Formats: sequence, structure tokens, C-alpha cells
Amino acid sequence: MAMANESLLSFCLVGGGFIGPLHAANIAAHPRARLAWVVDLDVGIAQTLAAKHGARPTASLDEALADPAVGAAMICTPPRTHAAIIERAARAGKAVFCEKPVDLDITRVDKCAQTLAATGTPFFVAFHRRFDPTHRALFDAIRAGEIGRPEMLVLSSRDPEISPPDYVAAMPYGIFYDTMIHDFDMVRWLTGDEPVEVFARTACMLDAKDNPHRDPDTAMVTLRMAGGTLVHVNSSFRAVYGYDQRIEAFGEKGMLVSRNHQPTGLERYDAAGIRQDPLLRFFIERYAESYVRELGDFVEAVTNGRAPSITLEDGRRALQVADAAVASAKTGSAVTVGN
Amino acid sequence: MAMANESLLSFCLVGGGFIGPLHAANIAAHPRARLAWVVDLDVGIAQTLAAKHGARPTASLDEALADPAVGAAMICTPPRTHAAIIERAARAGKAVFCEKPVDLDITRVDKCAQTLAATGTPFFVAFHRRFDPTHRALFDAIRAGEIGRPEMLVLSSRDPEISPPDYVAAMPYGIFYDTMIHDFDMVRWLTGDEPVEVFARTACMLDAKDNPHRDPDTAMVTLRMAGGTLVHVNSSFRAVYGYDQRIEAFGEKGMLVSRNHQPTGLERYDAAGIRQDPLLRFFIERYAESYVRELGDFVEAVTNGRAPSITLEDGRRALQVADAAVASAKTGSAVTVGN
Amino acid sequence: MAMANESLLSFCLVGGGFIGPLHAANIAAHPRARLAWVVDLDVGIAQTLAAKHGARPTASLDEALADPAVGAAMICTPPRTHAAIIERAARAGKAVFCEKPVDLDITRVDKCAQTLAATGTPFFVAFHRRFDPTHRALFDAIRAGEIGRPEMLVLSSRDPEISPPDYVAAMPYGIFYDTMIHDFDMVRWLTGDEPVEVFARTACMLDAKDNPHRDPDTAMVTLRMAGGTLVHVNSSFRAVYGYDQRIEAFGEKGMLVSRNHQPTGLERYDAAGIRQDPLLRFFIERYAESYVRELGDFVEAVTNGRAPSITLEDGRRALQVADAAVASAKTGSAVTVGN
Amino acid sequence: MAMANESLLSFCLVGGGFIGPLHAANIAAHPRARLAWVVDLDVGIAQTLAAKHGARPTASLDEALADPAVGAAMICTPPRTHAAIIERAARAGKAVFCEKPVDLDITRVDKCAQTLAATGTPFFVAFHRRFDPTHRALFDAIRAGEIGRPEMLVLSSRDPEISPPDYVAAMPYGIFYDTMIHDFDMVRWLTGDEPVEVFARTACMLDAKDNPHRDPDTAMVTLRMAGGTLVHVNSSFRAVYGYDQRIEAFGEKGMLVSRNHQPTGLERYDAAGIRQDPLLRFFIERYAESYVRELGDFVEAVTNGRAPSITLEDGRRALQVADAAVASAKTGSAVTVGN
Repeated sequence: MAMANESLLSFCLVGGGFIGPLHAANIAAHPRARLAWVVDLDVGIAQTLAAKHGARPTASLDEALADPAVGAAMICTPPRTHAAIIERAARAGKAVFCEKPVDLDITRVDKCAQTLAATGTPFFVAFHRRFDPTHRALFDAIRAGEIGRPEMLVLSSRDPEISPPDYVAAMPYGIFYDTMIHDFDMVRWLTGDEPVEVFARTACMLDAKDNPHRDPDTAMVTLRMAGGTLVHVNSSFRAVYGYDQRIEAFGEKGMLVSRNHQPTGLERYDAAGIRQDPLLRFFIERYAESYVRELGDFVEAVTNGRAPSITLEDGRRALQVADAAVASAKTGSAVTVGN
Repeated sequence: MAMANESLLSFCLVGGGFIGPLHAANIAAHPRARLAWVVDLDVGIAQTLAAKHGARPTASLDEALADPAVGAAMICTPPRTHAAIIERAARAGKAVFCEKPVDLDITRVDKCAQTLAATGTPFFVAFHRRFDPTHRALFDAIRAGEIGRPEMLVLSSRDPEISPPDYVAAMPYGIFYDTMIHDFDMVRWLTGDEPVEVFARTACMLDAKDNPHRDPDTAMVTLRMAGGTLVHVNSSFRAVYGYDQRIEAFGEKGMLVSRNHQPTGLERYDAAGIRQDPLLRFFIERYAESYVRELGDFVEAVTNGRAPSITLEDGRRALQVADAAVASAKTGSAVTVGN
Repeated sequence: MAMANESLLSFCLVGGGFIGPLHAANIAAHPRARLAWVVDLDVGIAQTLAAKHGARPTASLDEALADPAVGAAMICTPPRTHAAIIERAARAGKAVFCEKPVDLDITRVDKCAQTLAATGTPFFVAFHRRFDPTHRALFDAIRAGEIGRPEMLVLSSRDPEISPPDYVAAMPYGIFYDTMIHDFDMVRWLTGDEPVEVFARTACMLDAKDNPHRDPDTAMVTLRMAGGTLVHVNSSFRAVYGYDQRIEAFGEKGMLVSRNHQPTGLERYDAAGIRQDPLLRFFIERYAESYVRELGDFVEAVTNGRAPSITLEDGRRALQVADAAVASAKTGSAVTVGN
Repeated sequence: MAMANESLLSFCLVGGGFIGPLHAANIAAHPRARLAWVVDLDVGIAQTLAAKHGARPTASLDEALADPAVGAAMICTPPRTHAAIIERAARAGKAVFCEKPVDLDITRVDKCAQTLAATGTPFFVAFHRRFDPTHRALFDAIRAGEIGRPEMLVLSSRDPEISPPDYVAAMPYGIFYDTMIHDFDMVRWLTGDEPVEVFARTACMLDAKDNPHRDPDTAMVTLRMAGGTLVHVNSSFRAVYGYDQRIEAFGEKGMLVSRNHQPTGLERYDAAGIRQDPLLRFFIERYAESYVRELGDFVEAVTNGRAPSITLEDGRRALQVADAAVASAKTGSAVTVGN
């Protein structure tokens, strides 16, 4: 390599399955990042991904964290392992990029926060939707005052399919903890305000074959923000027309709409009408650009010594709203969001 | 006239202001209807409108109802007068076309119902939105099973302006009784189902100059239908971009969207972007075709001896939902819809 | 009638078939117009239409023109009869509203022009597209300088079907004389400029069953305007997705697009994509509002003593362009437009 | 590197300016390609680009071509140098990926063809638009028979700006040779047919400051294909709203439209209307995905031993149409396309 490694941020990627390869490719393509280690308990997965990008494979997190060349850990493992890995990486002096959630237990999140504070570790929780160019343009327009005070927000957040039964069993009320948690974060980010009250209603619309655990697969939530903004979020696990991701912000001066995206811009006219593509299939396709940009933001923050732009506190707040939504769905009453 | 009057349904229009002239013009243009009388306490208003259409003016409702040629009364007076006029017209043996609401008091509506039942009067309450071609196409698509069971409905129902202060003072919670009552009717009609629970949150977003009585000008409502469908309705009294009227129905097989309408189809491309017209201004423009079609439906029903397609019971049910929404907004709890 | 007839413009409608009933209904609905006579050689057609609107039927044009109450003649007969009827109406002192074309023979048009000039008759040739609200908004935007000088115009002008064989036989090259003649007029109106050169290419794409006379059913034309604007017009007689009517004006400061119109604003989302309605079927549906507005413009002009806004010279110029297009299609060379 | 180099196609990139860095990045990101050399007469440019991707810089094409590890040459130099470099690379036994055009002189292209034939070199001319996903979907739909026989094609191909004066001086009629040549290729590809006649009209719409050489900056072309399809192409060098790239294919069974693309899907509603982003700025943004996919196609062809999917003959045919367009623009007559 003609380019000196010392000018690059070297990553240790933890968890080579699922979203790991996508982050690995983005690291490889980034002009100021490098993939140094792939850590996976399944060493075969680690080897395959490492080979593709000229990195080193290992089943031992300690081995990778011991490498002084590594500047950052990227955590792509299952959620229940996040908190412990964050703490180990923090104690090893590595900056941390972590897939959401930090943990599903608020007290565990708080413990993690103490470790991060004690070690002074730069930490980023990957609410990737904030980096989507269309959502970001909507955010910028609100901040620029284009609609004045946001009075109402309406978010549609619908997946094309439900997760596999064992995944659902491992995380009940995943519609709030896994899906709408992104929307709860978006609402906080877009308004710069905190939810104070949540009302939620859920339903099981899928049949027993697709949803054997009868965990909610459909939900509507109303949030009231401290500043008065009213928010509606709806979600479903069977949008047959693709991944439905819309945000609408209404205010005294107008409305902003972040539209859905489609694979192509082809229109087909015939006697039956005008037909366009269905929506992009799921988050990998829809938020491809977001994954690139969130990495860029993290690399830029760490290399320039500024704090990453999404904090552990952001992860904690979104989790609180999800907890409140579950409580409301179970009791049928509006629930105050805790602190 | 070369066309024999006996083949036409002759109307006595009661209330010549506001929406009266629009209905009068539609009667005049209808091939099987005729405007015979215009009744208004302000006889000058009655005279002007009657002259334009070759009808007879009067300040006396009795005089017009006494005319045996009159087959139907069209009631366009202020809401608090509706019930009494309905009853007088019913006792005079005239079919009744009535602007909504029948009355804001359920017990008064029930008394009206008894009179209509006793007299066997054909009665139609004018929820005009059911006759909008786009909403109707959405209804037809649901009925044809295009999306399977409706799982979620989302309705945006936003006015460009708040009513004048005295109008607001006369009807507190008009956002439910005057505006969303249309949406409550649409939800019942579209799903063929009844709401069983209502949760409502309101806000005063306009300043004291525009909303001196601090009556809610912004609202979000969640409805749960007997069959399980979840429904969201939102409303505002200051959509600066025009009259925002959208309906979205989501189900197991797909989604249907009734889009907004614009005055023209012009697109303007320049360095700042692509610009289209704002939305049609308000209900007179947006639902012009609905007013024509609801009249046609009523005329066809009365002249063919079938029951009109929107009943007093429809008006009563929508009012119950509005009552429940007010109760929820006041208490902060979800409220069961009464019977 | 309570409204004095003298304040209304009374029409004698000549030709009760085809577009006649549409114009009759618009006259009836117009606040300052009245249908007095329906003239048709088939007296049964005249009687039916007259009865519907309280007018008098006749097979004699002279009888209707002799009525001093009649202020205007509306000519809806077949094209070959227009010129003679124009002249008779003009000599009878009636203002003339004439469906296009005046005649397909320029010398006959010129003779007509002499009669109109000699009698001082107000004359209007019904290029209805000028009154479409979207096209009109495009015209207004050009006039307001929104795109600066128009550099290129692109017009798509496609019918859903070919005319019946005998109609085609009676008017060869109908694609220029009957269809594109509207576009030639639009180009002149939109630019305020005259075409100086025409290049045309035609094809027979329909099979012999639908197009037995092998008259062109598909065409592309390039116009060069005196001021330099380049113009493209394309046309077809089998747009299976509906009546395709688009105009696009490109200039130094941007682009204006007059989009197609659809019956409803419904969108249907499913696994196959997003589907909207096909286009409005044909000109009766697409230009319904234009017919209302062109009548209003004529009535306003005649009653206020100003010249109607589309002149016989406009009809003559559009015909010249059509003649040039035919000559170019036949020779394969670009052709200069005559004077 | 853990991945063996022998499984990768090693590129020698010739010309490190302009589009060179974009192709270099795409090679680096491709899983089966590698950038081995950057050749540029300005050795500083070669060094910078080579350093970024771990390649070797040189000012000597011979040095790079002499490297037996190099499998392919990617030519990104100015057009007048293409033919000679193609021949040198072919004689060195390297597969060739060449930016269009091969040369602007047909006889020079033919000479090149002889060398390629004699050496059996895999050759690809980079008409990147064929790889745009939306255009490709349109192509696939035509091939699948969705519109039946294509009867008319309409292409809008407008740049946001004119090239610098010295670039214009070096290539007169660049609107045909540099811009529309892409459309001429698209028409051949989409229809699977050859143009037989061209009619072209040009204009200088820009003022002397922006277009000092008075080379055409605006053009409309009509093509007639051997199979009868009529084609319209229009172009301009000042689309202020962005890079306007539309294709519309009309046939007996319907119409296909490849729409324009925008940076974001944000819609802004206010009292002035609904505003969306302008179009993507220029070809680098609009065709980013095309550059990735054309490289993938070339790599896949060369490594699998199949012929690249765009041939030198494709480049030659498009050039012939451009020559004919120039001849037509100069003479004012339709011109037959040569063989």
C-alpha cells in the first residue's frame, strides 16, 4: 500500500454475519478507514469476510482489541451481547460504533453509560435513518424554519415481513423495540424535543402460521412532545408492496414529506393504468446510502476528535419510549415517558 | 318549458346563504330536478336566489311546504335548526335532504328519528365525501377485496383556516363535531364496521388572535373498530398549502391511497426545483363533484322509491364518535363508543 | 322566468348531434346565456335536444336566424358545411361561434373572411384547448417570463382511437387537419409567433382492419418558428392508455410541463407495484372544463362588445401549417409555411 | 492481501484526469478487479491517483502495457487519442474498455476495427446509459413485448451547461458528436433496429459570452428506423433545472417512460405550491450506478471469455448517425444514414 496506514482509522469488526459484511464493504470503500480485524465466534465466518478485505480473522475479541493499531470497534453482534462488548472495547481504549440497541434493559444501558463516561470513549449508536439524504433534507428544512414550529408529525414505518419465530420469541414487542425504536429516535431528532406521553394500540393481524407467538405485528402510537407537538407512528410487518418509510412534518408555515423510494423510475402505461415499481424491498436497499454516510460521520468525528453525533443517551431515550409504548399497549391507557 | 314538470322532483330549498346557492345550481343543472321554492328568513336572500333559477321566494317555510308540487326539502340552514325543519318537512310529507349534522344532541337526533320513522319519510344526511370519485374508487377497491381485510386506516383532514370566532363559540370542539365528523363517517363507510374505542389528543396551535376562544385547532385521534382495524385521523385548522384530504387504507394484500387534488396539472422546473400548484383551497372546490353526485343519488333514490343511501342512523353514529372523542380529549383516557 | 330574457345572449344551435348536446348543456348552465333554437336537418334530433332545454326545434336554419331575439349562432355541423352557415349567420347579423375548422380549403376560408369583414360579425373559432386551465396556466407562465424566451416546445397529442373509415375517407391526412391542427394553434398561441418551416414524417402503424384507407395514423412534425423556437409535435391514433395530451415548454430559465389528467387520484399499491388510473378517455372528458370556459369567453366578448379571442385568421393560420405538413409528408422535404 | 491477485482482473488506467478517478474508484470497489497502473503524461496526476488505490504510476503507456499481470486497459484520455491507444493496447494483448468515441473519423474507426479483429482483442465502448437501471428496465419491458412494436420514441437529452470554449472549438457540432451520440446509441439498442434517415434542426440560443464559437447549443432530430419506428430527440446545453434525461417508448400496447431522477424524495408544501428537488446535476451524479454496472459487465465478460456487450461497431454506427445529423443540419434536408 502506497498510503500510510497511520492516516487511516483501523476497525475491528465484531460479528461477521447479517449486517457485518455491509459495514465491512463500506469501511473498505471509505477513503480514511481500513478493516483490520474481523471477530466472530464462528471462525469460518470471520475468515471469509476478512479474506475479502485483506483483514485478519479471529474468534477472540481480546486478540483484536489488543492490537494497538486498532482505533475503533464496530459491533454487529446480536443485541443481548452489545453492552458487554461496548464495555470491553471501551476499557481497551477503542472508539465504539454500535448497532442499536445498546441493551433492552435500561439499567444495563445506564451501567454501560458509566463505563463510557469513566473511560472517555467516543461512542456512536447507529440510528442509520438519520443519515438518509431525504430524511436529512427534511430535518434541515425544519431546522431552517421552513414550516415554523412542528405541530404534527406522521410516520409510516412498515416492514415487508415479520422476523423468524425464534427472533420474535427472543424479543417480545419487537414492533416497538426493534422497528418503531427507529421512529422514536427520528421524532426526537427531528423535533429536538422529548416525548412526554405515549398511547399505543397493537394488533395481531398475521395468521398463526406467520406469527405463531402472537406477538403484535401491527401498531399505532400517539406521542405528545414536551413542546406540544402531536405525533402519530404506525407500523406493520406485512407491507406487501415493499418497505414503507414515510415521514411527514406539518407546521404553521407548511408541510414537509419524505417520500418512499423505488428501484427504478420506470412508468408503464397501458389500458389498465399507469404502473410504477413497488417500493425498495427492505432496509438494506432503502438505507444503503445511510450506512455509507453514518460510517463517514463516525470516522470524521473520531479522527477529528469531536463527539460522535448520536450518543448512548439517544439510545437510552428511544428505549424509554419503547418501554412506555409497551406499557400503554398492555394497559390500554396513555403512559407518561420516564426519565 | 317543453319538459313536463311532473317528471321532475321539485325542491324547496331552506336556507339561501352559504352552501344554498351551490345546491340550487346543482338542482337547476340536474336533468330530473327543479328548484321550486327558496325559503329564507332574510327574504332578500330568498328573492335573489329564487330569481336566478326561476323559483319562488318566501320567508315562510309553511308556505313552501304547503305546495303539493314540492317533493323534497333541502335543508341548508344553521345546524341548530336542522332537527325542527326535518320534522316539519317530514310531517308535510316531503323527502328530506339535510346538510350534516342532524343535531349535536343525540337525544334530539333520536327524537327526529322517531318522527321520520312514524312518517316514513325518505331522509338523506349529506356526508358528501362519500361521493368524491377518488374516495369512491378507494371504497370500491376495498369492497372488491383488493387489499383484503383493512388493517390500518390513516386519514388526514386539514382545513386551510379556522371558522370565525362566533361560529367557534357556538360549537365548541368543532374540530370533532364539524370537521372530523366527516372522517368518522368515512371510516364507518369504508370499513363497513363500527368504532368501539376512541383516543383523542388536541392542541391549540393558533395564536390568540386567530383562535381567541382557545378551542382545539389541532387533533389526533386513534379509533379501534369492532373488527380490529386500527384507524388514525389527524386534523388542523391551518394547512397553508390548501385543503389536505387524504385517505390511506392498508391491508394484508396492499395499500390504497386517495391523493390530494390540485387546480391544475402544471409543473414548473427551474434552478430551485420542480413546483406544482398548492392544493385546492377548501371544500367547495375540492368536493364540487361530490355535491353534484350526492344530489343525483338522492334524486334517483326518491324518484325510484328506494331508501336514500346515507341514513339518519349514519349521522347519529358519527356524532357518537365525536362525543367520545371530546370525552377522551377532556379526560386523557381512551373512551368506549356508546350505543 | 324571473330573469328578463333581454339580459341573456340567446343562441341558435346548428347541428344537434355529436358535440351539440354538450354545448347546449353548457349554454343552459351559463348564467348569461340561453338556448333559443336547435336547428337540425333531422328534426327528431332537433326536437329531443330542444325539449330538454326549453328551446324551439326546427329543420330550417332560416327560421331560426329570422328570430330577432337570437344573438348568436353556434355551429356544430360537419366541417364541409361550416363556411356556408357562417356566411348565412353573418348576413343575418348573428355573432358566430364555430367549431373548427372554418373550411379545409384556404380559398374558401378567405371568402368567408371577406363576408365576416363586410358584415362586421363577431366570430370565434373554437380551439377549445386554449381554455384548458392547465394549458392556460402554462401560457400565463410563459407570458410572465418564467422561462424566458421559449427555445423548444414538445407536444404529445395522441388519440385513443382512429375515426370511423367513412370519416377518414372524407378527410385524408386527418392526423394533420383534424388532430394536430389543435397543436399547430397551441404552438402559435403559446409562443405568440408564426411557424416558418415544417418537416413531417408519417406512418401507418394500425393494421388494415382498423385503418382500411391506409391514411396516416402516426406522425412526427418539426416546426421552426420565425423567432427561432424549435417545436416537436407527435401524434398517434391508438394510445391504449387514454387521451395523451402533454405540452412542454423549455427556455433559458426553466421548463413548464402541462401534465396529463386522470379520472381519479387513487393509487393502488401491491406486490406488482403502484398503479394509478389510465388517462381520461378522450377529448369530451379531458376538455370538459375547456368547453365551459370557451363559451364563457365568447358570451363575455359578445355581450361586452369586444372581439372574440380566437379569430378566423387563427383558423386560417393553423390550416396553412396543416397544408405544409401534408406537403412535407408527401415530398419528404421540409416545407416553408405559406402566407 | 489474503485474496490471490491471479483471480482478479488487473487494470491499467490510461488518463488520470476527468472521469479517470471515478473509474479508478469503481475498479477498487469491484470484488474481482484491481487497479495496477495509472498512466498519465502528467506524472503528478498519475502519482496522486495511484497512491490512493495502491497502484503504480507512470507517464509511459509502454511500461504499463509491458506488465504481464495487466489484463485490461481502461482508456479515459481525450477522444483524439483513443484510436492509437486502443491499437497499442490491443497489440499488447490487453482487453480494452474505452470511453466513447473511438474516433470522430469513420475511416480511423474502421482502421481500429481491423487491428482489433486481427488481434482478437475483447473491446468495449462505454455507452454507459445502457446500464442505467431505469433505462435498462425500459429496454427489458420492450424486449418482453409490453408495448408491442415500438412506434414512436421520444428522447430528451439536455445538459445543464455548455462545454468550455476550447473544448467546443476542438469538436464542432458537439451537440451531435458528444451529447446526442448517446441517444443515437440508445435508440439502436432499445429498438434493435438501425436508423435509415435523419432530419436535424439546430439553433444557437445561448449568448456570445457562453457560446463564443456559435456552435449549435440546441437541436431537434427526427430519425426514421428501418422497421418504421419514428424517433424524436431533443437536446440543449442549458437546462437550468438539472440534467434532463428522459426516454419514452410508445407502441401498440402502451407506453414506457424512463423518468428523471432527483437527489432526494423531499416534498415541500407551502402557500406557493408543492416543491421538489431539481434534477440531479449532471452525468456523474445521474449515471453513477451506470458506471458501476458497465464496469461489472466488462469484468464479467473478460473473465468469462464472452464478448463485451457493446462493440466497436456500435460506436461506429452511432457516429454515422451523428455525421448524418450534421449533414442534415447544414443542408436543411433529410439525410440517408450511410453504411
